[in-house]
Amino acid sequence: MLLIKNIGTLQTPVGSFAHGGEKQGENLKLSNAAILVENGIIKEITSEGELPQNAALADAVIDAEGRLVTPGLIDCHTHMVFGGYRQREIPLKLKGAGYLDILKAGGGILDTVKRTREASKEALFEKSMAFLYEMLSLGVTTVESKSGYGLDYENEIKQLEVNKMMDEKGPSEVVSTFLGAHAIPDEYKGRGDEYIDMLCQKVLPEVVKRGLAEYIDVFCEDGVFDVKQSEKFLKAGIDAGLKARIHADEIEEIGGAVLSGEIGAVSAEHLIATGERGMASMAKGGVIADLLPATSFYLNKTFAPARRMIELGIPVAIASDFNPGSCPSLNLQLAMSMGYIKYHMTPEEVLSAVTVNAACSVGREEKIGTLEVGKQADIVIWDAPDMEMLVYRFGSNMAKAVIKKGEVVR
Amino acid sequence: MLLIKNIGTLQTPVGSFAHGGEKQGENLKLSNAAILVENGIIKEITSEGELPQNAALADAVIDAEGRLVTPGLIDCHTHMVFGGYRQREIPLKLKGAGYLDILKAGGGILDTVKRTREASKEALFEKSMAFLYEMLSLGVTTVESKSGYGLDYENEIKQLEVNKMMDEKGPSEVVSTFLGAHAIPDEYKGRGDEYIDMLCQKVLPEVVKRGLAEYIDVFCEDGVFDVKQSEKFLKAGIDAGLKARIHADEIEEIGGAVLSGEIGAVSAEHLIATGERGMASMAKGGVIADLLPATSFYLNKTFAPARRMIELGIPVAIASDFNPGSCPSLNLQLAMSMGYIKYHMTPEEVLSAVTVNAACSVGREEKIGTLEVGKQADIVIWDAPDMEMLVYRFGSNMAKAVIKKGEVVR
Repeated sequence: MLLIKNIGTLQTPVGSFAHGGEKQGENLKLSNAAILVENGIIKEITSEGELPQNAALADAVIDAEGRLVTPGLIDCHTHMVFGGYRQREIPLKLKGAGYLDILKAGGGILDTVKRTREASKEALFEKSMAFLYEMLSLGVTTVESKSGYGLDYENEIKQLEVNKMMDEKGPSEVVSTFLGAHAIPDEYKGRGDEYIDMLCQKVLPEVVKRGLAEYIDVFCEDGVFDVKQSEKFLKAGIDAGLKARIHADEIEEIGGAVLSGEIGAVSAEHLIATGERGMASMAKGGVIADLLPATSFYLNKTFAPARRMIELGIPVAIASDFNPGSCPSLNLQLAMSMGYIKYHMTPEEVLSAVTVNAACSVGREEKIGTLEVGKQADIVIWDAPDMEMLVYRFGSNMAKAVIKKGEVVR
Repeated sequence: MLLIKNIGTLQTPVGSFAHGGEKQGENLKLSNAAILVENGIIKEITSEGELPQNAALADAVIDAEGRLVTPGLIDCHTHMVFGGYRQREIPLKLKGAGYLDILKAGGGILDTVKRTREASKEALFEKSMAFLYEMLSLGVTTVESKSGYGLDYENEIKQLEVNKMMDEKGPSEVVSTFLGAHAIPDEYKGRGDEYIDMLCQKVLPEVVKRGLAEYIDVFCEDGVFDVKQSEKFLKAGIDAGLKARIHADEIEEIGGAVLSGEIGAVSAEHLIATGERGMASMAKGGVIADLLPATSFYLNKTFAPARRMIELGIPVAIASDFNPGSCPSLNLQLAMSMGYIKYHMTPEEVLSAVTVNAACSVGREEKIGTLEVGKQADIVIWDAPDMEMLVYRFGSNMAKAVIKKGEVVR
């Protein structure tokens, strides 16, 4: 048994459901608290200086020395398995090259596809595991990871196999998403419908048969996949037993958010350009908004209307969007700071966004996302007295100790 | 002797002068390079696989394994010695409280002044040293540190003594700046002129006599110190043998940048609101622009016109502005990424900004800021193949090893 004592503030959302509206900002705060963990599960939580009944049985004790303790962070939107990097596009970008100019110069997403196809499964695994450990050091104990740089049978499967290997061998849990419809590969140029058909007929059945993904995802965007194609792809996934998520309204509001509510997607992601109709559909459909502020920052775009979403009762999650093109940062703490600085969310709302709401977004809400008796002991001890300090001290890693399934992993 | 071999790319500005205009983006790049260090000084630099003549004499060897190597970073604008933190203002700020509302609620800079006055010299030293070590881990080997939270004889001296202690006992060099005119303390409310007189007559002579600062600085801003007061204070410092720097045009363009050129200041800092007249004066006077992008980020302001400054030949430096109010980040790497993302500077321009230009800004250009034979061996080995990667992977600490005066300090 592990005892964590002298917790200055234990702060956590409560419950196994997505926290929208006023709930988004509701956190339980216990002073002078302690947590007793047995077999990776939280057995007892006490406060006001009281120790758990079975505290004496603990064979390991951590003194939190008055620090803040929260649930382990959950990064619910990443593209962390990829070949190469795209830093060499910087000189082009500084000269004002647009998306198409960069593609023409051999850059952009199809460059990442090329390098991901070229990379062996083992090489991708090794690279991604290093990212997973760096995320862990930042307090992230569960990560969603998408395919979408393979864009053919062999390489989509390869990426998803890497997700599975990371989940089995890595220090964190990895939730796998099949994002075959991330871009149209060169060999299907101008034939998006045929590409979607190929994914549905050839790749999806294998993904499902081998249990390589829990979610299906599509990049619904002007010039990529339109609403009709997106709907077809997601429905095929849902029919095959996957849950749906969708890249919606990142650049243009073409109807992705509206579709998310209609189709029963678990989450819609990006949502920079989403307007009232899209938000109404999301609210009606109970869709979680996975917002990605570091991408807005990196691309010099506006920030998603987080406050309006909260006002409408849409549960907001915040994720890193780590990927080699539009967001080369895997730092979820930095994204949390942007939740405060750029979305004007309260520290409590930010905490719900990266714990309970992110847990719901990846379908783990019964197990993780809050600190409650019976939940898995995924816990971060912060070098901070309160959540305010955590979002305020941007740029520093504030994680002091990270505990996954009751084991101190950092 | 220390040998650093297998340097994939050695990238550095060249020369002991501020790099403005086209020079800002000129870096020397050597492939397959090596550096030989003796007694903390760079003795030899070779490239193209050739080893230094005396390589065999090295008693320590670091294999850079093909990585990027640059000069140690120099953070030329910080307020790193302070009591307390100000994270508890977040709820007020989110409710839309302005600067004055926060002051009325007991917050703002005068709160930091109160806590800095209450703190012992030893407590301030211990806290600041932890920051210094964190900066070092990010590749920062020289730091400028300002007073300005004491605002009376005893406490301004106390802050400057902490600077001196850090410089003597810390792992990095600390360049001390006397910023007595940072705000008007409560006891001089409405009597700014008298406060400036007190500083000039009572505090400045002691600072100079005891060698507690190399620079004098003033917050020239609407509602703080006007141009006349700023000029009086800086001139008193210059007459007493200090070099001048100035917080200019952060919020309103009241003439601080113009003054900087006229008075012969070494640098003008912030410059968010600076227009053509101010820039012309700076260019004419040879003033360095110390830009602070993380402050614009945190305060949701626009970014200083860096490209226009470079066009006009003004040497641009980039610094963290670490302080508990307007920029609670000490991460200079993040500020460098913002140099690319927000100022649209090239990676080469960014490197000059945090090395040679920052060295000039703190008067150390003969000793540090470039990798050249005869200069001090302040060196960073990066976990990156090129500068592009370094500014691109924002949010991750890319420093692999840090060397100060020839010693591996991290």
